[in-house]
Amino acid sequence: MTESTWDSLWFGCSFWTGQKDNLVIENGAIAVSKGRIAWLGHYNDLPSRHISSKTKMNNLNNGWLLPGFIDCHTHMVYSGHRVNDFIARTQGLTYEQQNFGDTGIKVTQNLTSNASFDELYKESMLRAKSSIAEGVLTAEIKSGYGIDFSTERKQLQVARKLEDDLGRDLSWRVIKTYLALHALPAEYNNKRQDFVNQAVSHLQDLYDENLVDRVDAFCDSIGFNYEEILPFFNKAKELSLSIGLHTDQLSHQDGIKLASLLKINSVEHLEYMPPEQAFDLKEAGIVAVLLPQAYYYLQQVQKPPVKALREAEVGMAVATDVNPGSAPGASLQLARNMACLLFDLTPEEALLGTTSYAATALGLSEECGSLKVGLSADFVHWPINQVELLVSSISPLKPNLMVFKGNTLLNI
Amino acid sequence: MTESTWDSLWFGCSFWTGQKDNLVIENGAIAVSKGRIAWLGHYNDLPSRHISSKTKMNNLNNGWLLPGFIDCHTHMVYSGHRVNDFIARTQGLTYEQQNFGDTGIKVTQNLTSNASFDELYKESMLRAKSSIAEGVLTAEIKSGYGIDFSTERKQLQVARKLEDDLGRDLSWRVIKTYLALHALPAEYNNKRQDFVNQAVSHLQDLYDENLVDRVDAFCDSIGFNYEEILPFFNKAKELSLSIGLHTDQLSHQDGIKLASLLKINSVEHLEYMPPEQAFDLKEAGIVAVLLPQAYYYLQQVQKPPVKALREAEVGMAVATDVNPGSAPGASLQLARNMACLLFDLTPEEALLGTTSYAATALGLSEECGSLKVGLSADFVHWPINQVELLVSSISPLKPNLMVFKGNTLLNI
Repeated sequence: MTESTWDSLWFGCSFWTGQKDNLVIENGAIAVSKGRIAWLGHYNDLPSRHISSKTKMNNLNNGWLLPGFIDCHTHMVYSGHRVNDFIARTQGLTYEQQNFGDTGIKVTQNLTSNASFDELYKESMLRAKSSIAEGVLTAEIKSGYGIDFSTERKQLQVARKLEDDLGRDLSWRVIKTYLALHALPAEYNNKRQDFVNQAVSHLQDLYDENLVDRVDAFCDSIGFNYEEILPFFNKAKELSLSIGLHTDQLSHQDGIKLASLLKINSVEHLEYMPPEQAFDLKEAGIVAVLLPQAYYYLQQVQKPPVKALREAEVGMAVATDVNPGSAPGASLQLARNMACLLFDLTPEEALLGTTSYAATALGLSEECGSLKVGLSADFVHWPINQVELLVSSISPLKPNLMVFKGNTLLNI
Repeated sequence: MTESTWDSLWFGCSFWTGQKDNLVIENGAIAVSKGRIAWLGHYNDLPSRHISSKTKMNNLNNGWLLPGFIDCHTHMVYSGHRVNDFIARTQGLTYEQQNFGDTGIKVTQNLTSNASFDELYKESMLRAKSSIAEGVLTAEIKSGYGIDFSTERKQLQVARKLEDDLGRDLSWRVIKTYLALHALPAEYNNKRQDFVNQAVSHLQDLYDENLVDRVDAFCDSIGFNYEEILPFFNKAKELSLSIGLHTDQLSHQDGIKLASLLKINSVEHLEYMPPEQAFDLKEAGIVAVLLPQAYYYLQQVQKPPVKALREAEVGMAVATDVNPGSAPGASLQLARNMACLLFDLTPEEALLGTTSYAATALGLSEECGSLKVGLSADFVHWPINQVELLVSSISPLKPNLMVFKGNTLLNI
């Protein structure tokens, strides 16, 4: 095999790699070949034999280079808003009490079902662009607002089109998640099992249409239970899909037991998770995804057991949970900030949580989430002199430059 | 006197006026003449005799029209950042404990003193533009990071230039506040009284240079006390300046006593204010300015006595407190959101707090802050179907259109 030359080389700044054993490289250099990271290290150690006259040289002139951020938990494809939930909450009603009148998830189910594909696409595109503008190069997008299966499919089709269209000028990786077991439509109140059976069969359909990369369910007293979720997740296992689970958000559930049994990729929210279950997560290699903006927005008091997760060495990811009911207008920068100020993560944990652990949560650790030889060349250059500014600022900062699969992105 | 014709007329949407006795006008119309609001009411009641062929007619096609927002408490002219304070706080140090090493206000004092006028202007301009982009047409900007008087003057000169330059394409009203008594420079540790005396004399200098509209002081154990602040405020009274006071943020102080004695315009922060002092504020006609982002960012637990303020009918304003130490990257949208979710304001109170009560806090109630005949024609049109979205979203929304002193703003 002859040694290939590099397509591009980036240097002249500090690197934060997302790899825990080699986190910071002062005066780093990163080489790209065929869209992947071909070399990474200190500028002075650069092997020059791969550089040809065709290698595009990029001196970044200070600042910091980081992996593209990953938002591993979003519901960003939806229509309308839930301002009446917010008003109700300022009047003292809890999230669980709001599923009546002109409030609650059924408002979003109805609006999302009634929206045309184009309307849904247009509303969701604004959210996608605002995410990319803060350096997010990979986002998970869930279905889950369908009263019927055609709406679920429409949400995933919109997610796919967002990835395709943004791919033209911007490029963006989308993980499409079928959140079939989110909220039971009212018409299924007396036939829950039918609903679950249909979810399993629809999963196969979506898989055949290449509309699904991952599944999710909402394990909660207002969602679904262990026995209902199990066959759905078993089907996802059979299809080798990545699996996440909303659990222990509003009360303690059997979710972590189920997650550990099936060794799924991630469990998410976790405010009511008992600290001792951290060892089960570690044992099963499951990432804990923390969603501090939903905690803040729902005025929760009980916090996820971060100390126990840290002590058990469970990987912790942090995401926005963008959704109309509990995190409208959420930002990944604010999620990192709140992860520290509300959940006591360190700035380093918040950065790892939106890069490498977010990739692990989505089953993408061999694809993106850190600066590491062999991974996709996804990185962002920031005009900052301390990397923790990407955690300490309340509002998003503006990147200097974004590179996705080795291509420099325009229009940021 | 002959009746004049209107320069422009705006209609076709719902109005939220900021006037408590006439808060919402469905299908409203607003007329502008010579930069002021000439008429306001229901579209059907429009007196047509003021409309000529020269009147510019603007059909807004749904959405909501509101007064331009007012951010009545900011420290947005500063240089650098205080990321080390944030890191220290995630390690468990309090704000008061951080005034050592590479943390604390002296970091900002040094960076702001060392920055050239142009550097300081450039950094502050980014913050100003981000504020205007969320519909803020009036902002207060404080000095307070000077180790010496020349830095204080430089901060106020930057504030004035921001207003002048942004006035060319965007227009923006700036209230320049001399926050002389903020943090005692180390060299004055043994001569506090000299420092206070100098502040009084510098106030006259700044007034003569037209660099000051308002004064402020930090009444705190790490700031200044009643006796020190009194002569400074007396001087401001003599010059008929508006007066605000940081007090009761980190511990209970004599600030409200002082404020009530002098009947100043506003008291700000108030986490440690005893509820019974709400009556003193009401009696003296003082606005309570709440700064929930600083409360959030400093991980405070004690909240301002909102219930008591509401019951005593004290006007409550809400502001960002943008500053490097306790609210970096703060946004007025998030301030409204946090005012509800952290301090239990209603959405209506949060909107009034960033419009009419913010104007009152700054002494501008006869100039701006509500849609009212005679006031400056400052208003913003939003593409929303419920006005409370301007409170319920975590991130800022994008206005459709902004009008300042009757002129439509470009470049938003």
